[in-house]
Amino acid sequence: NPWASLTVPETVAIAQWLDAPERALNLTPGDRVSLNDNLIYHIGAFRPAKADALAYLADPANTPPPARYARVTIHHGAAFEPVVKDYLVGPLPVNENTVMRPLTEIYHREEIPHNARGYITLAEVNPILIRAMPSLAEATQELFGGVAMGLPNDTLVAGVVGPLSFDGTFRRAWINWRRNVPGVWLHPVGFFLYVDITGTDPQEWKVLKVVYNHQVFASPDEFLEAFKNGTLKRLPSRPDQRDIEWTTRKRPDSPQRDLDHLPGPRSVSFAGLRFRVDRATQYISWMGWGLYLGFDRDMGLSLWDVHFRGERLIYELAPQEAIAQYAGNDPMQASTAWLDRYFGMGSSVRDMLPGYDCPHEAVFLPATTHSFVGSITRQRAICVFEHDTARPIQRHMGYEEGEFGAVKGVVLVIRSISTVGNYDYQFDYIFHLDGTIEVKLSASGYIQAGFWEPAQEGYGTVIRDTTMGSLHDHVINYKVDLDVAGPANSLLFTHTAQEEITQPWFEDDWGSTVVQQKITRTIIENENDALLKFPQNFQGGYALVNLEEHNRWGIPRGYAIHPGYSPVYNTVVGSKRLLNNANWARYNLAVSRRKETEPSSSSMWNQNLPGAPMVDFHKFFDGENITQDDLVAWVNVGTHHLPQAEDSPNTRANVATSSFFLTPLNYFDADISMDSTNAILLSPPAEP
Amino acid sequence: NPWASLTVPETVAIAQWLDAPERALNLTPGDRVSLNDNLIYHIGAFRPAKADALAYLADPANTPPPARYARVTIHHGAAFEPVVKDYLVGPLPVNENTVMRPLTEIYHREEIPHNARGYITLAEVNPILIRAMPSLAEATQELFGGVAMGLPNDTLVAGVVGPLSFDGTFRRAWINWRRNVPGVWLHPVGFFLYVDITGTDPQEWKVLKVVYNHQVFASPDEFLEAFKNGTLKRLPSRPDQRDIEWTTRKRPDSPQRDLDHLPGPRSVSFAGLRFRVDRATQYISWMGWGLYLGFDRDMGLSLWDVHFRGERLIYELAPQEAIAQYAGNDPMQASTAWLDRYFGMGSSVRDMLPGYDCPHEAVFLPATTHSFVGSITRQRAICVFEHDTARPIQRHMGYEEGEFGAVKGVVLVIRSISTVGNYDYQFDYIFHLDGTIEVKLSASGYIQAGFWEPAQEGYGTVIRDTTMGSLHDHVINYKVDLDVAGPANSLLFTHTAQEEITQPWFEDDWGSTVVQQKITRTIIENENDALLKFPQNFQGGYALVNLEEHNRWGIPRGYAIHPGYSPVYNTVVGSKRLLNNANWARYNLAVSRRKETEPSSSSMWNQNLPGAPMVDFHKFFDGENITQDDLVAWVNVGTHHLPQAEDSPNTRANVATSSFFLTPLNYFDADISMDSTNAILLSPPAEP
Ligand SMILES: [Ca+2]
Ligand SMILES: [Ca+2]
Ligand SMILES: [Ca+2]
Ligand SMILES: [Ca+2]
Ligand SMILES: [Cu+2]
Ligand SMILES: [Cu+2]
Repeated sequence: NPWASLTVPETVAIAQWLDAPERALNLTPGDRVSLNDNLIYHIGAFRPAKADALAYLADPANTPPPARYARVTIHHGAAFEPVVKDYLVGPLPVNENTVMRPLTEIYHREEIPHNARGYITLAEVNPILIRAMPSLAEATQELFGGVAMGLPNDTLVAGVVGPLSFDGTFRRAWINWRRNVPGVWLHPVGFFLYVDITGTDPQEWKVLKVVYNHQVFASPDEFLEAFKNGTLKRLPSRPDQRDIEWTTRKRPDSPQRDLDHLPGPRSVSFAGLRFRVDRATQYISWMGWGLYLGFDRDMGLSLWDVHFRGERLIYELAPQEAIAQYAGNDPMQASTAWLDRYFGMGSSVRDMLPGYDCPHEAVFLPATTHSFVGSITRQRAICVFEHDTARPIQRHMGYEEGEFGAVKGVVLVIRSISTVGNYDYQFDYIFHLDGTIEVKLSASGYIQAGFWEPAQEGYGTVIRDTTMGSLHDHVINYKVDLDVAGPANSLLFTHTAQEEITQPWFEDDWGSTVVQQKITRTIIENENDALLKFPQNFQGGYALVNLEEHNRWGIPRGYAIHPGYSPVYNTVVGSKRLLNNANWARYNLAVSRRKETEPSSSSMWNQNLPGAPMVDFHKFFDGENITQDDLVAWVNVGTHHLPQAEDSPNTRANVATSSFFLTPLNYFDADISMDSTNAILLSPPAEP
Repeated sequence: NPWASLTVPETVAIAQWLDAPERALNLTPGDRVSLNDNLIYHIGAFRPAKADALAYLADPANTPPPARYARVTIHHGAAFEPVVKDYLVGPLPVNENTVMRPLTEIYHREEIPHNARGYITLAEVNPILIRAMPSLAEATQELFGGVAMGLPNDTLVAGVVGPLSFDGTFRRAWINWRRNVPGVWLHPVGFFLYVDITGTDPQEWKVLKVVYNHQVFASPDEFLEAFKNGTLKRLPSRPDQRDIEWTTRKRPDSPQRDLDHLPGPRSVSFAGLRFRVDRATQYISWMGWGLYLGFDRDMGLSLWDVHFRGERLIYELAPQEAIAQYAGNDPMQASTAWLDRYFGMGSSVRDMLPGYDCPHEAVFLPATTHSFVGSITRQRAICVFEHDTARPIQRHMGYEEGEFGAVKGVVLVIRSISTVGNYDYQFDYIFHLDGTIEVKLSASGYIQAGFWEPAQEGYGTVIRDTTMGSLHDHVINYKVDLDVAGPANSLLFTHTAQEEITQPWFEDDWGSTVVQQKITRTIIENENDALLKFPQNFQGGYALVNLEEHNRWGIPRGYAIHPGYSPVYNTVVGSKRLLNNANWARYNLAVSRRKETEPSSSSMWNQNLPGAPMVDFHKFFDGENITQDDLVAWVNVGTHHLPQAEDSPNTRANVATSSFFLTPLNYFDADISMDSTNAILLSPPAEP
C-alpha cells in the first residue's frame, strides 16, 4: 500500500531523528511545551507522486515501491519571528540518506504564520480569561448564573470561534460563554469577549471588547461599571433551562414504544463474509471492486487505487475540507466560519460502536495519527460491511422467456466517523454491483447554539427557553481523481433544453411542429470554465469521459458525477471570514488538471487565513486546457442547516445527509450487475 | 378500514346488480365483448368523504362506519353516440337502497369520450394492421427481417404509443414495429404507421401514413410502390443484432465474481418481528406509527390515516399519476407522452419475489382489482418489513457524562411494485423513528428504445448496433393530505438569502459590516401562488404548519416537504401531447385547498385528452385562500432519463431513484427518536 499511514515505529524514528543535535531544531516535547518553544506539531505520511505509484502498481515484482516520505509540521515558537513550517522528511525508514527540506510547493504563500497555527490546547486562551473573568464573577453569577474563576468547578466555560485571523498578522478570538454542563454547546448565555492573543507572550494578550445584549464595552472594567451603576441594559428576564437532561443523550421519560423491547432486525452473512480485507495492507475487495485505504490527521479516511473489474477507476478519493459558516445577531454566530480540517478529521476519529455505528458483523480496522501528544491508534476507526439494501438493483416482470427476474441490491459500505467537537461527520463510501459509488456524508451531534433573544429573529429558531439553533451552511469537499478508462480524460457537460421543431409526419391532428427536449453535449475545454453548478432542474449534468476510449457501441467511456441527496453549495459569497480560503464551496463541483503541487483543495491553516490562505483553490484554475489530460474533480456535498427543535439533543443523521454518485456512463456495453449470481430468473407464470 | 378495497363478493354483487334487467344497461360480458357493446370496464372502491371517515375514527364505537360506495366505469359502446361513463353505486353491500348515479363532480368535463377509453385489449388496433401488413410482407422481410401476418408466429409486432387523442374527437395511433422477441422494447426496426381507429367499427379504420427513414407515404400501397420501383431511400445497411440474449435477463457469459457463490447478508429479526399487521383491516403499526392500506386499479397502493404517537399526520398519501414524455426524430418517440394511470398501476402489480424484491422475512399482503376480465388477486402485491439502515439515526461521542451514545437507525418499509408494460415502478414508503417519512420511487425494467440512425443524434444514445435509448422525463405525482396538528394548516415558505449588515461589535479587524445569510419566512396565502419550485440551491423550502398550534417553544408545529433524491419536474412545457392533462408536472410541488370534488390530480382518461382532460390540475388553483384550512400538497418525484448502455437489459434502480421526505419541523419539542430503547448510552471512556 503506497499510501499507508506511517507506523508508530516509523514516527518514533522520525521524531528521534528530528530531535538529534545535528538537526539543531531545539525541540521541546509536547507534554511541557509553551508557545515560545519549538514543537513537532504533526508527523504524517506524504503521498508519493502518482507516476511513481502507478509505475509500481503496474509491475510490483520488478519495480521498487515509491520512496516513503513524511510531512512534518514544526511550530518554531522559539524563533525571533515565530513561524510554522512544513517539512518533507525522507526517504523512510530513517537512514543515512534521509534529509529534510521545507515543503512549500503545495502552498500558495511562502510561510505559515504562527498566528494561524493549530491548537496545542483548546485552553490556549485561558491565560487571558483567567485574568479577566474572576473580577466579573458577581456580574456573571447574577446575569448568567455562573462564574469562571479558572478552576475545575467553573460553572461557565469559554468557547472560541474561528477564524482567529484574516491573513496571519494577528490572532484574535471571539469568546462566548456557556454553562459548564453536558451538552455545553446548547447552553450559551449570551456573553462575549473579544481577545487579542497575538504573539507568544500571554502577558501581552488583552481583552479588546466585552459584548452583552448588543452593548459593546471596551474592557471588562467598563462592563462591570455599567453593571454596578445600573446603566447596563439587561436582557429581559426569561425562564432559563435549569434542567440539563435535555442536552444529554439520556432517554427521556417517555413510554417505551410498542415492541421496542425486542431487538431490531440484524444482518447476518450466514455463509460467511463476502468481502476480503487484508489488514496488513488495508486492501479491501468485493465483487470486482478493490481499493487501498489511507488515513491521515487532517481528513481521516481516504481511498486509493479504486479499481473495478481489473481497471483503475479512481486514483484518489478523499475528503478535503468541511466548512460550517454561521449567521447571527451576536458576535459569536456572525463571526463563525469553521474549516474542520484545522481540528483534524482524522485525529478526531474515535472508536465506532458495533451494532450502532456499524452492523455487528462489520470488520473494524484501526487507524493511527501522530501529533504533538504522541501517536493515537483507534482500533475501530474504520468499518467495512456488506449491506442488503433490501431492494433489487434491477428487475423486470415481463411475459416472455427471460424477462422475469431480479438482481439483489447488495452494497459494500466503508465508513468512518469523525467527532469534531460538537459535530459527528459520518463518511460513507457505498459500492454497488453495477460500478456505482455513492459518496455520502451524514451529520449528527450537537448544533452550535446561540442565546435566544428576539433580535435573533431571522437567524435561527428557538429550540428551548433561551437557546436558539443558528442558521448555518455545511459544505464538504472531496477530491475525486477519476481515471476513466485511463488517465486521459475530458469533461463532458450534457444539457437538455426544450425545442420546437417541424417533423414531416406531423402535419395532421397535432400540427406540424413538435415541442420536445433535446440533448446538447459539450466538452468543457478550459479549467476556467470548469467551476460548475448543476443546471437548473438538473437538466443534464457532468461526467469525465475518455474521448479516445469507446464502448462497444462507439460512445466515449465515461463516469458521471451525479447529484444525490442535498446537492448544495455555500449560500454566502464574499464574507471576509471565508474570503478566499474555501472558494471551492461556491460551486457544486469543479474540475482541474491534476498537479502534484495541488494535492488538496485546502490545508489546516486555511481556517485562520481567509484573506491569504495557504491553499487558494481558485489558483488551480489558471486557464489550462483540460481535454484528454489527467483531471481531478472536486465535488461538494452539503446541507443548509436551519436548526429546529428536533435538532436537540443531537441532529438527526437521516435528514442531515448529502451525497453524490459516481456512476458508469456508457463505460460498459451493458449493465454489468447482470452478472451477479445472487439473482433470480424465472419463467414467467403460465397464468400471469 | 373505511378505505378498504372492494371484496370479490362485493364486486360480484355489484356486477349482478348492474346486469339486472331493471338497470337496462344491456351489458356484454368482458370475455366476448366488442367495441360496440356495453361493458363494465372497472369496479372499484370510491372513498368516503373525509368528514364521515374522521367522525367514524373519532368514535368508532358510537358512529357507523361511512357508507361504502363503488365507482363503476361503463363503456357504452352500444349507444348511438358511444360514450364512457363513471357511476357511483351504493350504499354497499348491495341492498334495496342501492342506487347508481353518474359521477361527474370530480371531473372537469361532462362526458368521457369513447375515443379516450381504456383498452380492453392491447391488440385493439389489430383489425387494421391485419388488413395492411400482409401486403407489405416482402418489403418488411427485406428491410427489417420480419413480417406481421396476424399470426401467432409473427416476427414483427406492433407497439402503440399515446396519446391516442387530443380532446376525444378522434382516436388515432402511431404504430411502431418491433421484432417479436423477448425484450421486444429494445428491438424497434424504424418503421411506423399512423392509423385512424376512431369509432367502434373496425371496417372504417384506416392507415393514414406510413413512415420509414424520414419518408412519409400516404398509404401502404404508396410505400410498397416506392419499395418496388427503387425510389425508396433506404437506411444504410448496418449490423443488426441477430443476437437476442442481450435483451433478456439471462446472465451473461462472464466469470463469477469473487465470493459471489455465497449468499449475501440476510436480515433476521431473531426475537420476532417488531411491527404488527392486521390482515383483516390492512392496518399496520410500528414504533408509534399506524396506518391503513388502500389499493386501487388506477394507482395501486395508498396509505390512509397515517398517525404517529397518537396524532393524525396524513389523511391520505397516494400516488396520482406517472408521466413519461419522450423526444426523438421519429414519429414514435416524438409523439409519446405516457400517463401510466391509464394502464392501471394497481392492476399491473404482480407478485413480488421474496428475497429479491423484499427481504425474506417481509410480510406480504394481497391486493385485488376488478376489471372487465374479472377480479385479480395478487397474494404478494404489498410487502412490509423492518429494515436496519446500518447507520445511527442520531449519535455523538462527547467527553461529558450523557454525551456518548447512539440510536439505531431502523426503519419500516412498505412497498409495492407495478410493472406497466416495459417499466417497473417500485413504490416505497419508509418510516423513521423521528417522525420522518421518505416517499421513494425507483424505476427498473426495459426502456422504450428507438431505432438508431444518425438523425437521432441529440435524442438519446446508441446502446446497441441499431438500438438507441431515447431521451425522456419521468415525473410522478403524489397526493399528500397532510393534517399537521389538525386539519387547519398553512403553507410556510422559508427562504434564505445573503445580506450585508452592520453590527456594532465588528468595527476592528474585519470591518463593521458582516456578510451572512438570513431567513425570511412567508405564509403563502393564495392557491395561485402555491404552484411551487424548490428555490435555487435549495436555499429554503416548504412546509405545512398549523399557525394555531405551537410546540413548547412557541413555534408553529409543522412538517416540511423536503427534497430527497432527484427532485425534478418535467423539462418540456407546452407540448400539445401533454398540454393540460399533467400540469402538475411543471412544478416540484403544489398546495391546494382540499376538496371532495378534487380527489385526484389525474384520471385514467387524461392519457388521451391532453387538450381537454377529465381532470385539469390547474383548475384546482382558483384563487382560494389557503391559510389555516385543510390543505393538500401535490408533490412530485422524477428523473430525467438520458439512457445509456447500462440501461440494457434493464434500468438500474439504484440511480433511477427519486424521493421526498416528510419530516417534522418544530412539530415536536425535541427529537423523539431519543426514546428508542434500541439505543446505547455509555460513559465516555476515562481515557478518551
Ligand atoms: Ca490549473
Ligand atoms: Ca484523473
Ligand atoms: Ca381551489
Ligand atoms: Ca390536509
Ligand atoms: Cu449543522
Ligand atoms: Cu426512463
